[in-house]
Amino acid sequence: MSGRFTAAERAAMRRALELAATPGVPLGPNPRVGCVLVDEHGETVAEGHHRGAGTPHAEADALARAGGRARGATAVVTLEPCNHHGRTGPCAEALAEAGVRRVVFAQPDPNPVAAGGAEALRAAGVEVESGLLAVESGLLNRAWAFGVEHGRPFVTWKFATTLDGRSAAADGTSRWVSSRAARLDTHRLRALCDVMLVGSNTVAVDDPLLTVRDEHDRPLDHQPLRVVMGERELDPGRRIFNARYSQGAASLHLRTRDPRVALEQLYARDRQHVFLEGGPTLAAAFLRAGLVDEIVVYVAPMLLGAGRSAVADLGITTIADAFRPRVVDITVLDGVDGEQPNVRVTLAPTRTVVEEVAQQPSRNPVPREET
Amino acid sequence: MSGRFTAAERAAMRRALELAATPGVPLGPNPRVGCVLVDEHGETVAEGHHRGAGTPHAEADALARAGGRARGATAVVTLEPCNHHGRTGPCAEALAEAGVRRVVFAQPDPNPVAAGGAEALRAAGVEVESGLLAVESGLLNRAWAFGVEHGRPFVTWKFATTLDGRSAAADGTSRWVSSRAARLDTHRLRALCDVMLVGSNTVAVDDPLLTVRDEHDRPLDHQPLRVVMGERELDPGRRIFNARYSQGAASLHLRTRDPRVALEQLYARDRQHVFLEGGPTLAAAFLRAGLVDEIVVYVAPMLLGAGRSAVADLGITTIADAFRPRVVDITVLDGVDGEQPNVRVTLAPTRTVVEEVAQQPSRNPVPREET
Repeated sequence: MSGRFTAAERAAMRRALELAATPGVPLGPNPRVGCVLVDEHGETVAEGHHRGAGTPHAEADALARAGGRARGATAVVTLEPCNHHGRTGPCAEALAEAGVRRVVFAQPDPNPVAAGGAEALRAAGVEVESGLLAVESGLLNRAWAFGVEHGRPFVTWKFATTLDGRSAAADGTSRWVSSRAARLDTHRLRALCDVMLVGSNTVAVDDPLLTVRDEHDRPLDHQPLRVVMGERELDPGRRIFNARYSQGAASLHLRTRDPRVALEQLYARDRQHVFLEGGPTLAAAFLRAGLVDEIVVYVAPMLLGAGRSAVADLGITTIADAFRPRVVDITVLDGVDGEQPNVRVTLAPTRTVVEEVAQQPSRNPVPREET
Repeated sequence: MSGRFTAAERAAMRRALELAATPGVPLGPNPRVGCVLVDEHGETVAEGHHRGAGTPHAEADALARAGGRARGATAVVTLEPCNHHGRTGPCAEALAEAGVRRVVFAQPDPNPVAAGGAEALRAAGVEVESGLLAVESGLLNRAWAFGVEHGRPFVTWKFATTLDGRSAAADGTSRWVSSRAARLDTHRLRALCDVMLVGSNTVAVDDPLLTVRDEHDRPLDHQPLRVVMGERELDPGRRIFNARYSQGAASLHLRTRDPRVALEQLYARDRQHVFLEGGPTLAAAFLRAGLVDEIVVYVAPMLLGAGRSAVADLGITTIADAFRPRVVDITVLDGVDGEQPNVRVTLAPTRTVVEEVAQQPSRNPVPREET
């Protein structure tokens, strides 16, 4: 398959992925897309990327910069050029009209409304190849593609725990279970999302800020929406609602305890990726409803022996029904400034807890082996 | 420092370490030692190793095999040759008398009774160098050296836990929390010890076998002593006491709940390395007494949300007093036959829990950082 692409196209696709991932582009309802136009010698003619709903698509951006130099060029683009009249015209048409000779894209458009670009291009006499760095492009738009398929935001649940499953000591203190390296890593993941979600109890008790900050504890320019869900009335003086602490981040109180309702309301507001942090009870409600798509656990190598459990009751009573999501990654985060390393475990629940528990007979027959 | 040793000596020391670690040699009261005699051309003259209390030391073993060919040779030995008249004569004297020209050893003898071999050799005109692969030799005799220094066995506490700190589900079922790879790894670690220790409650409730078995579930030839501690009366029909299940392993009931007393009694029986497995309450008693020297935790990437806690109350009430042993190693144990990977975390408690808790002010001042 690699023979179908030139080295220049491969390099251009890497660059297009970088452009697509330009920091500060909100997730919004559109995918992140980058485009690089290269001439017959493999030289870059123009670059472009999408900057969020209502702005030009990556291809249009690059074509505008290229002007007449687009004629005879190859367009290297991370996603199949669209074929529909939305807020902008179809990119397939624009590319063909500009005289682009060849289009190379990473992954097909999963959105049935926008798909068909490749066919339209071929019909217009443009050479089309696809599949170059498709995995990388897919990861970049994971939440968006999930939304297209499932009609709701992708949910990442993050929790921190001691080696013995505690998120706080007996007196409620929890600063800090995770190492500084783990906390910085959490901010990195928060920055990839467009919603920070916590329960109203967490806001009442912990009064968190939930802004995304860099390694110098400075807020990033683009902040996810901070969402509190739950029916508990909250003091408007809580920091999450207070402009004095907001650092440019908006907040919202969804007066529901139903995870499905909350996700529907967020998807209706074009939110793609929810980072669920606060409250084991809220997380358990999402898990039981099968609405957690990714779990990120930071394990700190300490013991408390008592205190708040990191995970609330999931309705599981016997070991055969343990919730065993697929392990995606295990990474040791080295400690800095004399701190201990922490372990980050990333899990992908493939089925809902309810489905797991309901499945009979037991998935884990007990082997004849002794302790 | 490496210039002090020839390549032949380095190779001979690696071989001597292999000999010292010959499987089946009981830990006993003596260190594991290997010895290789090499001639002036670096060729091996003879090999020897110690086979447990009452048998010849490694040097004597090698000298006996070498006979007259020891004259002019270099003795490469993992531990400083002894200088005392025990059940055997001093090895330093024997080496000098055999005409050995040079002695290279890995680590000095930490036992004050036996030390002084290097001086005695030099006084007899033998060239002496030390420090070659000292760390490797130290690891081999870690429990023995610990005993020489502290007058008690080295204690390894092993536990298995889910990511949320559970060792069993709500109904008590726990087969299996750990993966098969983790269970095999546990048997490998068990085989390095000479005592398997559990509480009497664990024996009453779980009726474990506590034998060490290979990957085909066959018992090894050399089994650690299986020790139950606690005042609870036990049914002699429990499998640990039943010859029918013993597979060559002896068992012993120590009628004490005091970890210090139990360790004293085991050390008096020449036991060097205790593998503590059964019962969170027993483990907590050892931890609180500062009698855990190594912790091995197997973390399984599953959630239970409820059930038995892997670690019992340690008397810790606030996060600043969390028990934070030093991390020695974090290893991912890949799953076999479709099982998930498990994580093994090895910790070295440097101080007792009591010391940790007593220390004021807090070791972990809260940095000014927000959630």
